[in-house]
This record gives sequence, structure tokens and C-alpha cells, in this order.
Amino acid sequence: MSLRVEFHYDFGSPNAYLSHRVLPAIAERTGVEIHYIPVLLGGIFKATNNRSPMEQFADVLNKQEYQAKETLRFLMRHGITELVRNPHFPVNTITLMRGAVYAQGKDWEADYIDTMFKAMWEQGLNMADLEQVARVLADAGLPVTEIIDATGHPEVKQRLIDNTADSVARGNFGSPSFFVNEELYFGKDKLRDLEEEIVARLG
Amino acid sequence: MSLRVEFHYDFGSPNAYLSHRVLPAIAERTGVEIHYIPVLLGGIFKATNNRSPMEQFADVLNKQEYQAKETLRFLMRHGITELVRNPHFPVNTITLMRGAVYAQGKDWEADYIDTMFKAMWEQGLNMADLEQVARVLADAGLPVTEIIDATGHPEVKQRLIDNTADSVARGNFGSPSFFVNEELYFGKDKLRDLEEEIVARLG
Repeated sequence: MSLRVEFHYDFGSPNAYLSHRVLPAIAERTGVEIHYIPVLLGGIFKATNNRSPMEQFADVLNKQEYQAKETLRFLMRHGITELVRNPHFPVNTITLMRGAVYAQGKDWEADYIDTMFKAMWEQGLNMADLEQVARVLADAGLPVTEIIDATGHPEVKQRLIDNTADSVARGNFGSPSFFVNEELYFGKDKLRDLEEEIVARLG
Repeated sequence: MSLRVEFHYDFGSPNAYLSHRVLPAIAERTGVEIHYIPVLLGGIFKATNNRSPMEQFADVLNKQEYQAKETLRFLMRHGITELVRNPHFPVNTITLMRGAVYAQGKDWEADYIDTMFKAMWEQGLNMADLEQVARVLADAGLPVTEIIDATGHPEVKQRLIDNTADSVARGNFGSPSFFVNEELYFGKDKLRDLEEEIVARLG
């Protein structure tokens, strides 16, 4: 049976960024390709009646401090030093995610994904601002006009809607989420279990 | 610097039971004693404005199914076959937890803890019923009258209140929770990180 590993992501999630920083090493160690599937986290939340942990636990004593400590542990474990708090959070990422849909299969797909994650979580830019997006794309040498035009195409918009609905139909309720075939792993804390599952299936 | 590892638990939590099943192997591998600290989960929730995941995510599509899958993965990983759904859940555990406070330091402390976890999560008994508790204690050869009398002592009651308040003051917001000195690890999913932290500190 063939093995397909997917990462369902939205650039708006810092935990998706942190997962993105660790996935290349997992791909390298296991030799498995990890397919990046753009989804709209807001759409998933709406479809599942879920909320971000920040909203969910806003009024819970100690919980935010603990989550911050867990983030710090993750950064230290993986030697990540670039994460910044994005002052514009939460950022409406719909245009970025439509761009990600359009990027799929292009030879600059990986560049696009990495550039957007960095703009959000290393530079802390306001990526809901289309002029800012255009500047970031240009600086990265990506095809600015082609991408921004594509984010207005009905088929691109529909594909993002479909990706999001498919993800929920397969059991997802948030991001970052990972699938090993139809087995869901949720959250950056499950990256180790994800890797072990891949290794077990490769047998 | 000395190393102190604590498990803050309430018999009412199935995830505390599952942690209890795995902790002996961690103690054995690391050579570290793990101190069991009885706390009242309801008291922690009240003090921190937190709720059980079951309540929190009751209306979230896919989330309960995913949690069930994660429980199954945990059972398989650790070879645990005895977990049952307790039909009386959620059970008021205040008497059991007072008994656990009284048990601290007694030579039958470990027996008491194991007996209560099994009654809750292997036998699925209604442990809010004092007659049921007495039967379970008697079957285990534990001092029934001494324990049940002690659950009415003001100093036992106060110690459970203090344990719970201290736990929250140190950053806790639920159960199962673990402390390595003042470093909090929350949830059965963090048992691996807990063990690594113990090993790192033992150097």
C-alpha cells in the first residue's frame, strides 16, 4: 500500500510555521515526501464549531503561560531562533492561502510557502495588506502579478474551499494537522508520533 | 541541585489513570521517585476557570473522535488493555482524594492509589458511593474504617484544599500534571518529554 503524508496548513497559525520548520528534517530522515495542502483555518473553525486555543483559553488562568512555555521548549528542542510575535495577529490569510493553492505544482511552490511563513512569523508583517504581500513576493523573486491575479480566479477560490471541506470530512478540526494516508495527527506536539508512524509504515 | 518529580492527580481523570499506568516504567528507567500529590480537579477548574476537554469540546466536530483515537494510540503504545469507560463519569472524587491525602506516607499508600484508579477505570465503579468505596477498600485489604473516618478530619480536608491551591499557584490548570522541580508538564502526551527532562537533569 502506498504512503501519502500531508500537512494541512494555514500561514496564520504560528504552530503551522513551527511545524514547517521541523518537517524538512522528518522528510529527510524518512525519505518520504510531505505534501503541503493549503486550507483555511477560519473555514475549518466555522465548519467544526472550533476556536483558536488563544480564544478558547483566554480566560483560563495559567494556560497561556503554559502554552508559551511549551512553545519555548519546542524552539529550544529544534534550535529555532527566528520566531517573532506577529503584532497584526490574527491576520486574515485568505489571499495568501489562495496563492498557496495556485502555487501547488509550480516549480516555485516551496519558495512561496517558505516566503509566506517567514513574512508572517519571522518578520511579523501585516500580510492581510495586499501591497505588503506584493512587496514580499517581489523581494523573494516570485511572480507577483501572476500570483495576485490568480488569487481572484474562481477555480482557485473554489479549490481552497474544497481543500478545507475535504480536510474536515477526513476528520480535521484545526491546524497544524498531518495525515498519514487517512490517519490524522493534530498539533506540533504530534510531530514525533507522525515520524514514528511513517517509519512503522515503511516497515 | 536536588530533583523532585511530582504527579498531581485526581482519580476522576481517565488520563490520570493512563499516566499512572506509565509512570512506574519511567521511575524504573530513570531511578527517580515520583511523588503522587492528590489534588481536586474540580477545585483546580474552579480556581483557573478551566473545564474538562469533554465539556470544552462537546460541540466541536471531529474533536472527540480524534481524542478517542489518541487514547487508543496511547493504549497500544503502552500495551494497556484494561481501560473501561466509567458509566458514572463524571464521578465526584472528593472522598477518594481525601483518602489519598490521608494515605500519604502510609506503607499502604501505593496500594490505595492503585486500588482507586483500578476501581474507577478498570472496573468502572460508582466511587461517589461510600458503600462502594468501603467494599473496594475491604476487597483490597486496606483499613476501611480508618480511611473513611480520616476523610472527615478537618486537617485532611484542609490538606486537599491546600494541595489544590498550591498546584494552581505553581502554574497548574488541570490533571494529569507533572512537575520536575518547578517545571510543569501537562497531559499524558507529555510523559515522554517529562522523562527526557528528568534524564537531562540527572546529567
